[in-house]
Amino acid sequence: MRAVDLIRRKRDGHALDADEIRAFVTGVVDGSWPDYQISALLMAIVLRGMTADEAAVLTDAMVRSGARLDFAAWGAAVVDKHSTGGVGDKVSLVLGPLAAACGVVVPMISGRGLGHTGGTLDKLEAIPGFRTRLSADEIRRSLERVGCALVGQTDDMVPADRRLYALRDVTGTVESIPLISASILSKKIAEGIKGLVLDVKVGSGAFMQTDDDARALATSIIRIAAINGVRTEAVLTAMDRPLGRAVGNAVEVIEAIETLKGRGPADTEQVCVHLTARMLVLGGVGGDHADAERRVRAAIASGEGLDRLRRIIEAQGGDAAVVDDYTRLPTPTYRVTVSAPSSGVFAPMDAGAVGRASVILGAGRDRVDADVDPSAGIELLLPPGADVTAGEAVLAVGGRDRARVDAARDQLVHAVRIVSGTPVLTPLVREVLDEASVA
Amino acid sequence: MRAVDLIRRKRDGHALDADEIRAFVTGVVDGSWPDYQISALLMAIVLRGMTADEAAVLTDAMVRSGARLDFAAWGAAVVDKHSTGGVGDKVSLVLGPLAAACGVVVPMISGRGLGHTGGTLDKLEAIPGFRTRLSADEIRRSLERVGCALVGQTDDMVPADRRLYALRDVTGTVESIPLISASILSKKIAEGIKGLVLDVKVGSGAFMQTDDDARALATSIIRIAAINGVRTEAVLTAMDRPLGRAVGNAVEVIEAIETLKGRGPADTEQVCVHLTARMLVLGGVGGDHADAERRVRAAIASGEGLDRLRRIIEAQGGDAAVVDDYTRLPTPTYRVTVSAPSSGVFAPMDAGAVGRASVILGAGRDRVDADVDPSAGIELLLPPGADVTAGEAVLAVGGRDRARVDAARDQLVHAVRIVSGTPVLTPLVREVLDEASVA
Repeated sequence: MRAVDLIRRKRDGHALDADEIRAFVTGVVDGSWPDYQISALLMAIVLRGMTADEAAVLTDAMVRSGARLDFAAWGAAVVDKHSTGGVGDKVSLVLGPLAAACGVVVPMISGRGLGHTGGTLDKLEAIPGFRTRLSADEIRRSLERVGCALVGQTDDMVPADRRLYALRDVTGTVESIPLISASILSKKIAEGIKGLVLDVKVGSGAFMQTDDDARALATSIIRIAAINGVRTEAVLTAMDRPLGRAVGNAVEVIEAIETLKGRGPADTEQVCVHLTARMLVLGGVGGDHADAERRVRAAIASGEGLDRLRRIIEAQGGDAAVVDDYTRLPTPTYRVTVSAPSSGVFAPMDAGAVGRASVILGAGRDRVDADVDPSAGIELLLPPGADVTAGEAVLAVGGRDRARVDAARDQLVHAVRIVSGTPVLTPLVREVLDEASVA
Repeated sequence: MRAVDLIRRKRDGHALDADEIRAFVTGVVDGSWPDYQISALLMAIVLRGMTADEAAVLTDAMVRSGARLDFAAWGAAVVDKHSTGGVGDKVSLVLGPLAAACGVVVPMISGRGLGHTGGTLDKLEAIPGFRTRLSADEIRRSLERVGCALVGQTDDMVPADRRLYALRDVTGTVESIPLISASILSKKIAEGIKGLVLDVKVGSGAFMQTDDDARALATSIIRIAAINGVRTEAVLTAMDRPLGRAVGNAVEVIEAIETLKGRGPADTEQVCVHLTARMLVLGGVGGDHADAERRVRAAIASGEGLDRLRRIIEAQGGDAAVVDDYTRLPTPTYRVTVSAPSSGVFAPMDAGAVGRASVILGAGRDRVDADVDPSAGIELLLPPGADVTAGEAVLAVGGRDRARVDAARDQLVHAVRIVSGTPVLTPLVREVLDEASVA
């Protein structure tokens, strides 16, 4: 079948069959489809959609386009988590070690941040020496030793996604539920997982701004994953305000460690415990959800989770002493505060505003090839809902670049709101979807 | 504005403003828009559409992307005709000379055939020596001398259309009323015309298969042309059967000459006279339509039309003696006939079937870079509706390539239908649309 005929079929609203989809992915990887034909088909998919069956074949074809990890022989509970990205989302750094401490094998392949949501790899690389580029063999050895690897994609995994994503980014074809689903899932399925917990962030700081949109993405991914034999649960969590009190790289590593020490912000701890417990249940090592939450909390209380983080850092060449000495992490050379303009109650901040300020600060990146400043970060000095006095510092903003810190501070000044009366927060864990609920 | 943001706006169903459209066309011509972004936007336009205002700006920007002819100083009635293409459509070869003989200046820039519809340039080049590639200066001199030029696009006219069309052809983005309208009109407006008669063919042998589709295209072009100051009338004409009795290149030249001699098939003559008369009225040289038809018929009867064709052929370097001696045209080296399988009435043939056979024969081309055989042609030996006896020859098929001639004949055998009773033809001139009727 000629590429142009395949494009026309999708343009006219038909479902593509498995042979057509596999021919397309083959053409993407071997270069026989030129960029302009790929982008025309991508736009047709954005506007005409794909059925779950089409997206499932696309996902499988993308997985088969490259190398995949395989733990079938291990007989282990291999489960991962994926977050759609949010502001202050350091969950992976807490959940990976906790899940591993509870007996789940977590081959977590993450990405870098782009736009106002941070990336797990950027955060991890704030730890001196920490290597996120491991070969498949190194990932396997790390998993054998410590049960969790926190790494980037290897060059030979899901090459189709790399070419497609690069094109989607510049052709306005990112916003498509089936394409997003296939991109996320192909990378996760290539990890060799049996189960997946999906953290779908909802709100101003997230890709999905409404519950309906988040539910649509969750439903799509659960269905496609089921067709490909991966059991998936999706948890919709609030991203109208940042998660926790630190936004950046080193500052989020510190908050993650604090959470493993049992001293993290309540919201960060709640989301981490909830999602880790779901991984245990999916992996068959945790009884029911309540049992699993108890096991996860016990791994915090006993220090097993923290110890597991230490071992993961060591296994990946990092300085594990950071766990006990935060001064070993990059620290800002310039730091300013934002004060409350009036007395009252410190209202939750808008996640989108904080996220955009973090990009201005250099904690995130606005271009794929931009560098991040690992020391750059925004800290809430008080928990949202706390009483404040006019002039009291509520935010600290730090980094290496004075101009960027000042520019971020100027943005954040407008984002601080002091209110009267206790602000009502939307529920942190909003909804859980599984195969039964989307059937 | 970044290309990707412009693509996203169209993807989301917004109308693009004039600056955005002009920036796009500039990017197409100067190369700053890569192919993959152009094709993503084209697909978004196919699926989201364009308003008449958007398409009018697109058309104008495409005209301005290159050189244009200008006859404003002449004070002449400069009017052209465009046909959406059909099988046996030799109208331009008759209408150009007739309109010129009646006082209209016709700077007719035509294209080559692709698929089952023939191209005016291919037909003209069957005349020995006839040059269709003239410079803008040569076109101007030809128009001054003989009032009509039958030529191809010069290299410096509407470069935006060339790049867009090449991409549309391979990305499934041809089928878009606003894009088709802009492509047709930009090339016609660049000719410096004041009025345009559009022949929209409808039926199996045409791009538009239904009256509704034809009306939609006609309406779009009339509106866009009006915004750009070109008065346009559209005539929907039948293309469920071929026009006239010759399909090919040299054979159509002969039928055109016969029509100018007053001996053409009734349907060819009717369409040519009707469309030429509309050009006279649009150009203000013809009174009302009935007056204009009388003038056109008089130009046939007096031989002025034929004489004008002779002068046009001479002006463009061709052998004008072909007008009186058809053996000077390329003749087939191999010729076969198709006979009536039974006695009865020779039913009108399906235009699509005849058109496809003409491509097999080599009279048309299935690839842009294919050569055509100027001698190749299909002739109806009897008018549709004639009584035939079983075994009587009804079609002649000729060309240089024996295998192709035989293959075409095998197709045509299945397309010949002998019926009982007089077949009822759909009206030849189906409908006329003008600015008032689409307002």
